[in-house]
Amino acid sequence: MKPMPSEPVMSRDALAAFLDDVFPQLHHAGPGPVLVSVGPLAATMRLPYHERHLRPGGTISGPAIMALADVALYAAILANVGPVALAVTTNLSFNFMRKPEPRDLIGEARLLKLGRSLAVGEILIRSEGYDDLVCHATGTYALPPRRD
Amino acid sequence: MKPMPSEPVMSRDALAAFLDDVFPQLHHAGPGPVLVSVGPLAATMRLPYHERHLRPGGTISGPAIMALADVALYAAILANVGPVALAVTTNLSFNFMRKPEPRDLIGEARLLKLGRSLAVGEILIRSEGYDDLVCHATGTYALPPRRD
Amino acid sequence: MKPMPSEPVMSRDALAAFLDDVFPQLHHAGPGPVLVSVGPLAATMRLPYHERHLRPGGTISGPAIMALADVALYAAILANVGPVALAVTTNLSFNFMRKPEPRDLIGEARLLKLGRSLAVGEILIRSEGYDDLVCHATGTYALPPRRD
Amino acid sequence: MKPMPSEPVMSRDALAAFLDDVFPQLHHAGPGPVLVSVGPLAATMRLPYHERHLRPGGTISGPAIMALADVALYAAILANVGPVALAVTTNLSFNFMRKPEPRDLIGEARLLKLGRSLAVGEILIRSEGYDDLVCHATGTYALPPRRD
Repeated sequence: MKPMPSEPVMSRDALAAFLDDVFPQLHHAGPGPVLVSVGPLAATMRLPYHERHLRPGGTISGPAIMALADVALYAAILANVGPVALAVTTNLSFNFMRKPEPRDLIGEARLLKLGRSLAVGEILIRSEGYDDLVCHATGTYALPPRRD
Repeated sequence: MKPMPSEPVMSRDALAAFLDDVFPQLHHAGPGPVLVSVGPLAATMRLPYHERHLRPGGTISGPAIMALADVALYAAILANVGPVALAVTTNLSFNFMRKPEPRDLIGEARLLKLGRSLAVGEILIRSEGYDDLVCHATGTYALPPRRD
Repeated sequence: MKPMPSEPVMSRDALAAFLDDVFPQLHHAGPGPVLVSVGPLAATMRLPYHERHLRPGGTISGPAIMALADVALYAAILANVGPVALAVTTNLSFNFMRKPEPRDLIGEARLLKLGRSLAVGEILIRSEGYDDLVCHATGTYALPPRRD
Repeated sequence: MKPMPSEPVMSRDALAAFLDDVFPQLHHAGPGPVLVSVGPLAATMRLPYHERHLRPGGTISGPAIMALADVALYAAILANVGPVALAVTTNLSFNFMRKPEPRDLIGEARLLKLGRSLAVGEILIRSEGYDDLVCHATGTYALPPRRD
């Protein structure tokens, strides 16, 4: 009864190029989130460690984590519907669970619903090489009208 | 029956100096959020417009809005409990309502609850000079044990 | 620069009758939420105290609070756009701040955005006669297409 | 590197009896949520279909879904820390994705973090026999101090 999730419509390389082209600011003043992989209703991004993300106590800032979650969910949507630059975030909710050490963060986004006008997903964020969650986020994107 | 909200325990100037001292990264690569005022259970911050916050369509990025909300709520807490650098965000939820033009953003944070171990607040974000909300956020901070 | 919020398009009495007609289950097994008033982008509802809402410790259950928030926001929307029975909740987020005593609860809903296809609002819930918040909620409703 | 999640400390039968004892109101005016199973950092509950949960269009009400999510997460916590009746919900966030048909709902709760003073989890809600999500929820519970 489980429907096969369809294959992504953009490859990792095509989507990575699209993101770099459309969002050059992601890499302003230092390396920004990098697309690791795409999959059916999914995408994974990595935020390379950089000292501009540090906060007191040697942890990575909440806003850096939130930016990673936002773009990872956006990447999961684009990978699965194609390059609609104008998808709009309408809601993001974050539960912060552990303060991450100063190392790369991995954000795995999964779409829970990919409807015609709305996409809903969750993002799991961990420090690279660790299983404990740093943050769990959910988000909603409004999708522009499209032909299919 | 409404209890008088007590006066803030830190002045705007003292809190602004504290934030600049503890979070130098806020101003990495360009001017970051600036404390405008503090009040009883409240604080207001301004995010000066900077091109690193731009996104396609000439709007300001979601992460820049989220960073402003996070620090404005933190400022409202510090202003009212004193300089506890180790308050920890546990939850942030955002509803994005309008795409902001490329101009300064104003974030007004109000504490809805300031308990012994938990603070809950909301943040209203608008473009300077406009009444329409760009974003409404709510957040929860866990407070470290303190004597009082 | 602040636009005048338009007057509600449904009176309190008309909306109360509509709610009772469309949602008879609200009063299943005991009195349910009652519409107190409507206003520009706003509505207030009261949940009469009933022992079916009790939880251990003599407090009122979270689900009773959540149901009040949901219907109060729905009432604020209907009061201001007319009787569109098919508005659909897409997101609700709750911060619970104090355990309410066993007495009536008052839910005040305010619309933060009333767009063509989406309404966003917040709901403040208090025990009757008290100023402290029991719960703060935000919610999003998808609106069916309408002529205007 | 993944720590073994420890076994639950309460059996399904012991927890079901505890819930019925402490929350008799769950079954007020009709059958309420039933504990299906417990597991490491997890619990599953079923909400039997009952006409008091119906809404216009023959769908199940949001508040019934929210009540199921709340109690399923609570069950996952109790199953894994023991019968602490006084755990307190501090935050619940819901994304509603599909209108459920009039049939039983299944809520699967998983703990994302089980700390000393805070538990965070997610709840997936589906109509029985279907894979599509009706609702995704996240929640936070404050735990009373305990010895261990």
